[in-house]
Amino acid sequence: MSYFGLKVVTSRKFWDAAKMVYPRCGQIASLLSYRFMSQAKEPPLTAERYQVSRLPYSEVSVDDVQYFQKIIPGRVVTEEGELKVHNIDWLRTVRGHSKVLLKPQTTEEVSQILKYCNERGLAVTPQGGNTSLVGGSVPVFDEILISTALMDQVISFDDVSGALVCQAGCVLESLNQYLGERSYTMPLDLGAKGSCHIGGNLATNAGGLRLLRYGSLRGTVLGLEAVLPDGSILNCLNSLRKDNTGYDLKQLFIGSEGTLGIITALSIICPRKPSAVNVALLGCEDFSRVLQVFTLCRDQLGEILSACEFMDSESMRIVQKHLKLINPLPDNAFYVLVETSGSCGKHDEEKLDIFLEKAMDSGFVTSGTVATDQGKIMSLWALRERITEALAHDGYVYKYDLSMPVEKLYALVEEIRTRLGSSAQCVVGYGHLGDGNLHLNITAKSHSDALMSALEPFVYEWTSKHSGSISAEHGLGFKKRDHIYYSKSRGAVHIMQQIKRMLDPKGIMNPYKTIPPTD
Amino acid sequence: MSYFGLKVVTSRKFWDAAKMVYPRCGQIASLLSYRFMSQAKEPPLTAERYQVSRLPYSEVSVDDVQYFQKIIPGRVVTEEGELKVHNIDWLRTVRGHSKVLLKPQTTEEVSQILKYCNERGLAVTPQGGNTSLVGGSVPVFDEILISTALMDQVISFDDVSGALVCQAGCVLESLNQYLGERSYTMPLDLGAKGSCHIGGNLATNAGGLRLLRYGSLRGTVLGLEAVLPDGSILNCLNSLRKDNTGYDLKQLFIGSEGTLGIITALSIICPRKPSAVNVALLGCEDFSRVLQVFTLCRDQLGEILSACEFMDSESMRIVQKHLKLINPLPDNAFYVLVETSGSCGKHDEEKLDIFLEKAMDSGFVTSGTVATDQGKIMSLWALRERITEALAHDGYVYKYDLSMPVEKLYALVEEIRTRLGSSAQCVVGYGHLGDGNLHLNITAKSHSDALMSALEPFVYEWTSKHSGSISAEHGLGFKKRDHIYYSKSRGAVHIMQQIKRMLDPKGIMNPYKTIPPTD
Repeated sequence: MSYFGLKVVTSRKFWDAAKMVYPRCGQIASLLSYRFMSQAKEPPLTAERYQVSRLPYSEVSVDDVQYFQKIIPGRVVTEEGELKVHNIDWLRTVRGHSKVLLKPQTTEEVSQILKYCNERGLAVTPQGGNTSLVGGSVPVFDEILISTALMDQVISFDDVSGALVCQAGCVLESLNQYLGERSYTMPLDLGAKGSCHIGGNLATNAGGLRLLRYGSLRGTVLGLEAVLPDGSILNCLNSLRKDNTGYDLKQLFIGSEGTLGIITALSIICPRKPSAVNVALLGCEDFSRVLQVFTLCRDQLGEILSACEFMDSESMRIVQKHLKLINPLPDNAFYVLVETSGSCGKHDEEKLDIFLEKAMDSGFVTSGTVATDQGKIMSLWALRERITEALAHDGYVYKYDLSMPVEKLYALVEEIRTRLGSSAQCVVGYGHLGDGNLHLNITAKSHSDALMSALEPFVYEWTSKHSGSISAEHGLGFKKRDHIYYSKSRGAVHIMQQIKRMLDPKGIMNPYKTIPPTD
Repeated sequence: MSYFGLKVVTSRKFWDAAKMVYPRCGQIASLLSYRFMSQAKEPPLTAERYQVSRLPYSEVSVDDVQYFQKIIPGRVVTEEGELKVHNIDWLRTVRGHSKVLLKPQTTEEVSQILKYCNERGLAVTPQGGNTSLVGGSVPVFDEILISTALMDQVISFDDVSGALVCQAGCVLESLNQYLGERSYTMPLDLGAKGSCHIGGNLATNAGGLRLLRYGSLRGTVLGLEAVLPDGSILNCLNSLRKDNTGYDLKQLFIGSEGTLGIITALSIICPRKPSAVNVALLGCEDFSRVLQVFTLCRDQLGEILSACEFMDSESMRIVQKHLKLINPLPDNAFYVLVETSGSCGKHDEEKLDIFLEKAMDSGFVTSGTVATDQGKIMSLWALRERITEALAHDGYVYKYDLSMPVEKLYALVEEIRTRLGSSAQCVVGYGHLGDGNLHLNITAKSHSDALMSALEPFVYEWTSKHSGSISAEHGLGFKKRDHIYYSKSRGAVHIMQQIKRMLDPKGIMNPYKTIPPTD
């Protein structure tokens, strides 16, 4: 079935891309997850569940679709069946009803599309791998979807400097493989690496698992190219490590969640692939010991520490239950996953041994296991990386991605557990210790307004009281837009609104998201 | 003498600050430099040398000064003698004629000052340590100087996370000492550390010597507080490593050179102080070998490499001649300074030994010396850090701070040497290999229009042709503002102009600098 009765050519490439909208964690194909998702019931329309009103944008007409067909022949999707997966988020919590998905291959095509949409007053939603956890990558109503799936070319790689230049639709894991063959690695890594697009990573300022070691995208991204809402192309695509000539415009697009323009290409500095990687999984009795392990590993492992993650016993239970993963250290209240990456295996192992000995001797750790071969390293990482996926199997997920002083990190999880009692199916806490980033997740059989009222604004107020951020790395998207004031002052939001108006006066870019409307 | 006949209290603190406007390199007191500077002839007024016209801002009146005295009693400087050092840049190449310098201690005071200046249409120039090399920190005409010298308090330090919160006027070296006592270190370091203020470092997005290891300020700065031109206080002063709630406004102020507001406080993530530091100085026959040393040290030293600098024989000659420093490796065409910082001295020395052996065996290096004790490390660093200071003793300095692909880095120096022949006293090239950042400096007896014409636009055109940046880390300031188009597109500059107009509609903040006026 097609909304407009136009014949649409569906290339093999498109099907590949369509499958990829489900995160694969690392190289572990989560077919289970794929089947689960495709059989599940459709969520209600966002407009109904969240009671939002459509803004007065134009509606897509047959003429519009014909125009798009002229610009990108064979790459205009109007089939309802094909569109479905792009209208629903990966968590299946929001649903739009876009009637057109466009698949440009070049920046010039994106430019022509946006110029037309801006003139016609048509709203658009950019979409990468559609792995947003805050409803940022699907339309709220009938916004035109602009997918970066076919913009997946590496433009250049400089093996002296490590600067990679590529299109926005490259899948993070593919880039990492490309670089791995050249003895380099991407400076970011996250659970959704098998699906997420690097353009989406930039648009959401993705954090992930390597931030502790390589820093944020704000430091590693060297340049980018973006198409502005009026179709003009902003070329800031240089590959220089230092460039202080005027305001750093690329920073505006990093983390603006597609509300200011579409990132079409980027340049990023990539570190050498470490020649030695070790992973230790450690069991702790309580959260105060988790913190002691964190301090000790930072002191002892110094420059080779590349990740320090924690998870509680509920997180561990959930990956065992739904994904049948094996926990090598049963019966611990908490787990810490420590990764080292370095240039000399012997030195790294010596440092790790000293750390582990101290951690055991001090009673911080009750049991532990160390992996040095790739297979075992991946099994240990899966226990942490696949929690999101396991939670999605458990029921409707209420997701919170918070940052705060590391000492406070687990107190909120305990408080929520007490507060909700048996009304929640499961309350889990895990996250990035090194970054003070807690992923608090609550599951229930289905969405319920009562549970939502017990959670919000409580979680946000608690976070705000402890000077935390209500969105550490997921962004605000559709779901958290109006909660921005818990983390940002009215003055700051006012400036954001001015910037939005300046670059997107008609408000066509990813509307209803990230920046609340002016009072 | 006082411009307005008002009594001004000059505290001891002010004299300390006044002395500090001359960079001290590391802990080596450059008294020689101080004497040289204070005895030197005044440069001509900027307005005359550069033929610029004053914009129609209000002129400071006796009433204005009286108002300032009310807000910050005893901290309004109007004495011509005292003002002199604040009206002239450290290089003594530009000179303004401001009649008032204000020394607020709090954000609230800065807010009151700017609110008043904005209402009155009075232009202002923020000033930190006044170490700008592009005329960014002195007035062009009679702009009111707002100094951060008395805003020098550490607000808090979290010794678990390493987050330091402080006022903008803290001197970089003092912060490093403060952190050193707590086993932490600043993530940036530069030659002017003894004078420059951290607020100025942020305002200019200073790069420096540790960027290779700890990344740029865009990644390490966690938050900041700024006063906008209308006096409103923008508080983005959080200490979280991750915060994706809306556009990252702090990035607008980092690198905007005081043209959008005054940074009053900031929060920065600081790494642990490395327990082992080694420095090697190596001599190379030619620049191709310098590049080979760079690639080898990156591969061999990996995560412990903390700096990789190069200098040519002319740089070495100039520090020997003017500062009487001793070159331990005479008669090399090029020098590479390699620094390692790590958590285990034994491991680091092993890695360094293997690297040095390979560098010698491959013929990349002809001679070398290694320092492990603090005194010798500082002597080797002085050879690189004090080049700027030595050049200032050599005569009038034409300064270029360029970034480009590392392979091209020295070709320009050679071309300039040929191009200028005997019309230049000295042409030197040195810089940060790891960042592709060349400092090209030409000295002559005095400023000459003929020499300037031989240099510009040639240097900029050459840099632009090789996809480089015409200001890698110094910023544009007054001197390079109109050259922005060599590195940025008209579209990009147009957006910068819109941002400037949005935040500073009356254009009172640091005028004549960084962003060229609309055509």
